[in-house]
Amino acid sequence: MEQEAIQDEWPEAFRTCWGCGSNNEHGLRIKSYWDGDEAVCEWQPEDYHIAFPGYLNGGIIATIIDCHSVNTANSAAYRAEGREPGTEPYLFYVTGSMHIDYLRPTPLGKPVTLRARVMEMGERKAVVACSLFSDGQECARGETVAVRLNAFG
Amino acid sequence: MEQEAIQDEWPEAFRTCWGCGSNNEHGLRIKSYWDGDEAVCEWQPEDYHIAFPGYLNGGIIATIIDCHSVNTANSAAYRAEGREPGTEPYLFYVTGSMHIDYLRPTPLGKPVTLRARVMEMGERKAVVACSLFSDGQECARGETVAVRLNAFG
Repeated sequence: MEQEAIQDEWPEAFRTCWGCGSNNEHGLRIKSYWDGDEAVCEWQPEDYHIAFPGYLNGGIIATIIDCHSVNTANSAAYRAEGREPGTEPYLFYVTGSMHIDYLRPTPLGKPVTLRARVMEMGERKAVVACSLFSDGQECARGETVAVRLNAFG
Repeated sequence: MEQEAIQDEWPEAFRTCWGCGSNNEHGLRIKSYWDGDEAVCEWQPEDYHIAFPGYLNGGIIATIIDCHSVNTANSAAYRAEGREPGTEPYLFYVTGSMHIDYLRPTPLGKPVTLRARVMEMGERKAVVACSLFSDGQECARGETVAVRLNAFG
C-alpha cells in the first residue's frame, strides 16, 4: 500500500504553504513520509535555487527544513494521541523558532534528503531535529520548535 | 546621490543568489541599504509566498533574514577595513548558522521591513541581529553567524 505524504494529511484549504502545500503551484511542494520514527523527504532543487555557482541556497535549505520539521511534528502529534492523521478536530502546528547550522556547502544539481525526528513532544510544543543530506553526507542540521496553535490561547 | 544596494556591491558573476542576487530572474531580489549603523531592506512578498491564508511563509522570512544579514556582514567588513565596498581582494561571507524566533504571524499582502545590525565583527566571523517588521510591528527576529570564506582555509 502506498503511503500518503504527510503534507496531504492537511485539510484541503490549508495546503497553501509555499514550501510544502500541494495546492501552491509556485511552491516547492516537498513531500514527507514516515520511515519508522523518522520522517523522510527527498527533493530535487531547481537550478535557480542557487546560492553561489554550484551550491544550493541557504534560504531554500531553511525553508525545506522548516516545512519538513513542522509537518513531522503535526503528524507525530496525531500518532501520539492514537488518532488517524488529518481527522477532526484538526491539529495545527506552526514554527515558533528554528536554528540551522550550515555544516558544509550543499551541492546543487542533485537531490537532497531530509531526515527528521521528534526529540520532545509536549502539550504546547514539539522539538524536531532534522538533518539535510547530499549523497549521504550531512550538509545542514536544524532544530525547530513547533508550537501547537490552540496552545497559543 | 542615490545609494547603491549592498547586493550590487558583489562582483557580477556572484549575483546569482536566489534570495538576493540581482541576476537571478526567478529569485526574490531583495535590496539592502545602509541607514547609519543599520542595514535596511523593504520588500513586497508575492501572494504565493504564503504559509496559511493571510500569512507570510516562514521559509521566505528565513531566506530574506539570511540574505539581508549576510550582505550586511559582508558590506560591514569592507567598512571595518576602511575599504570601498566591492573592491578587490573580494570579501565573501557565507551563513554559518542562523536562529530565528517567529514572534507573531506576519501578514501577507503588505511590504515587510528588515533592519539588521552587526553585533560582533571578528576576524573569522560576524554576528548579525536582524528583525522583520510589518506595519512597524516586530514579527520575527534572527541572529545569523556569517563566516568569512577565506577563514575556512
